[in-house]
Amino acid sequence: VETTRLETFSDGVFAIAVTLLILEVRVDRSGSLAHDLVAAWPSYLAYVISFLTIGIIWVNHHTVFGQIGRVDRTFLFVNVLFLMAVAFIPFPTSLIAEHLGEEEATPAAFTYGLTLTVTAVCFSALWFYAVRAKLLRSDADPATVAGISRSYLPGAPLYLTATLLALVLPNLSVAMYAGIALFYVVESSIFGRKVVEGGRS
Amino acid sequence: VETTRLETFSDGVFAIAVTLLILEVRVDRSGSLAHDLVAAWPSYLAYVISFLTIGIIWVNHHTVFGQIGRVDRTFLFVNVLFLMAVAFIPFPTSLIAEHLGEEEATPAAFTYGLTLTVTAVCFSALWFYAVRAKLLRSDADPATVAGISRSYLPGAPLYLTATLLALVLPNLSVAMYAGIALFYVVESSIFGRKVVEGGRS
Amino acid sequence: VETTRLETFSDGVFAIAVTLLILEVRVDRSGSLAHDLVAAWPSYLAYVISFLTIGIIWVNHHTVFGQIGRVDRTFLFVNVLFLMAVAFIPFPTSLIAEHLGEEEATPAAFTYGLTLTVTAVCFSALWFYAVRAKLLRSDADPATVAGISRSYLPGAPLYLTATLLALVLPNLSVAMYAGIALFYVVESSIFGRKVVEGGRS
Amino acid sequence: VETTRLETFSDGVFAIAVTLLILEVRVDRSGSLAHDLVAAWPSYLAYVISFLTIGIIWVNHHTVFGQIGRVDRTFLFVNVLFLMAVAFIPFPTSLIAEHLGEEEATPAAFTYGLTLTVTAVCFSALWFYAVRAKLLRSDADPATVAGISRSYLPGAPLYLTATLLALVLPNLSVAMYAGIALFYVVESSIFGRKVVEGGRS
Repeated sequence: VETTRLETFSDGVFAIAVTLLILEVRVDRSGSLAHDLVAAWPSYLAYVISFLTIGIIWVNHHTVFGQIGRVDRTFLFVNVLFLMAVAFIPFPTSLIAEHLGEEEATPAAFTYGLTLTVTAVCFSALWFYAVRAKLLRSDADPATVAGISRSYLPGAPLYLTATLLALVLPNLSVAMYAGIALFYVVESSIFGRKVVEGGRS
Repeated sequence: VETTRLETFSDGVFAIAVTLLILEVRVDRSGSLAHDLVAAWPSYLAYVISFLTIGIIWVNHHTVFGQIGRVDRTFLFVNVLFLMAVAFIPFPTSLIAEHLGEEEATPAAFTYGLTLTVTAVCFSALWFYAVRAKLLRSDADPATVAGISRSYLPGAPLYLTATLLALVLPNLSVAMYAGIALFYVVESSIFGRKVVEGGRS
Repeated sequence: VETTRLETFSDGVFAIAVTLLILEVRVDRSGSLAHDLVAAWPSYLAYVISFLTIGIIWVNHHTVFGQIGRVDRTFLFVNVLFLMAVAFIPFPTSLIAEHLGEEEATPAAFTYGLTLTVTAVCFSALWFYAVRAKLLRSDADPATVAGISRSYLPGAPLYLTATLLALVLPNLSVAMYAGIALFYVVESSIFGRKVVEGGRS
Repeated sequence: VETTRLETFSDGVFAIAVTLLILEVRVDRSGSLAHDLVAAWPSYLAYVISFLTIGIIWVNHHTVFGQIGRVDRTFLFVNVLFLMAVAFIPFPTSLIAEHLGEEEATPAAFTYGLTLTVTAVCFSALWFYAVRAKLLRSDADPATVAGISRSYLPGAPLYLTATLLALVLPNLSVAMYAGIALFYVVESSIFGRKVVEGGRS
């Protein structure tokens, strides 16, 4: 029952963070509306990258909680820290939306990457704490557990690389954030067609 | 259990997208408050059309998930793409609210229609993927499945027609978005009085 | 199961509408911050009245759904219309917050009352449709059903009276919106101490 | 079943209040973007303090509801009042974000503290009402109940002290809000490692 409430709260934060992203999509008026709507493409791109990224985090959170059997207070607070990072994402998204392709793209892309790096670190902390504190369900599959542990290792270093790249090549850095998200979605969809669960019945 | 969490997340996005619409209802001050509140009618109209449209999508999502027995990762990501389109709706809604009846109504109505067309395409993709990947529940009723498949065919072309209509007659295009929503609600309410489910007990 | 999803969606809209109210609490800067925070009292008052009113509607929605055994499509759409009215409340709340005590209080209080009247009408429609379409659970208590039917009759006329009062005495009209909410909370708390449900076990 | 719906609604308000905090994180432009992002540190600090504080309140609400066996209407309304205080937190958070370190920090820190004091009072009222009205579950553990009762006593006076401190030393007052949150998280994580629940199985 309690794990359910933790998931409900987490899903609420995911759903709200993802939906608030649209509030950062804005049109700066300078010419005709048609022209300005086209010129606002960095807004749309930032929306798509952040939506996909949070969507992927949600799918992974979902996978992790499938292996959790019980929680303690430390786990609850690590989860709060993790959600604090996720809920922060709309802010650097608005920076990307406003400054991509401009002179000040570097601090925008850097802040965005820093947020994703911290999010990845918190997510790894959540998982490794659960493993170490023996919070996994008694019937957790060792292969799945090892697979999750392995698949979370590259997240933080990848995002940190993209963050540092922002200092010299901010546009390439944003392309890398998009690439990581796309790679994950495509890879999951091709190799991950095995059924995830037994459904509602 | 897992389908439940997918539905909770989806319902969260629907509920937030629909409730955020009110943030786009604004009064531009130019005369008395009474006058300006009346002059803001395109805001209210855009609010009603988008609320009804998202409400209908929610009811349909609900119908589709009633037939789903299990999900895989591809399905999860198609659902994320679909929600990305739904959560985008408040943005073109604000364009309609601001520009309906003005000279620049065309790009507003076009962007609105494009968003609904993409939403309809993603929703069809979600359903047809579920059918092809055999994710339906084992006891799914073939007549209901065929009915859903049939009823989702006209959505995307209808919205595409209204979108193209916006290029020449934007007001008529908005009337068509309203008409599609109203038709669906009225048709459902008259012909759809059969009981949907067995309830909570 | 399906009634649960309808309640989740409705609760989501209630929770978001109520929490978005805070975005309308703003301080207009004219003197010192301390002075301006005090001068913003109509914002706080509007926040409290709307929060209590939506809270009461939520409690009542909760009571009604306790008697519903099954739903049909018409019921789903009447519920969507009802939620459309509830989610509209933050807009007139912002009008009250900005114009109470000013010259233009009348259109603000009138719009606020109109929204609550429409909400009350939709809520009555939801309930009376459920009764007429025989959607109540088979073990619904006739006394409770008659009690709900009786208690929803005065809502719409009361709010309509306050709405019309706004045309001549807008401040008194706002006092009446506050009074209705307070009366309901106090009355419920004194006479409604009987246990509502059997709890979680 | 009904307690579940109450928790869903409450969790919705917690999740939304916490996620809306990001809308108050804004960059005032005065120099380079990099400079302005650094200068916006009070925004980030206010975000972190409020997120942690609401997160802690959520964890405690969770603990309390674990002991509740049934609810009555009075309890529902005390919970609504409590949520009204929680949902108000983003407003004084924005005041802190804007005025910390400035001349007008006092009214900002005072309003923030007042909101947290009222929240703590409402939370204590919720718990003590539940105890007095015998709403606890029949198998509630007396030691846990006594522990909760004891642990909620210091909340309101602590926040009231910090609130009054704001009148003379606003920065120290904000440090105290941060300190209370940090102390609670660290203390819980060290001494609270015992397993909270039996999990999902």
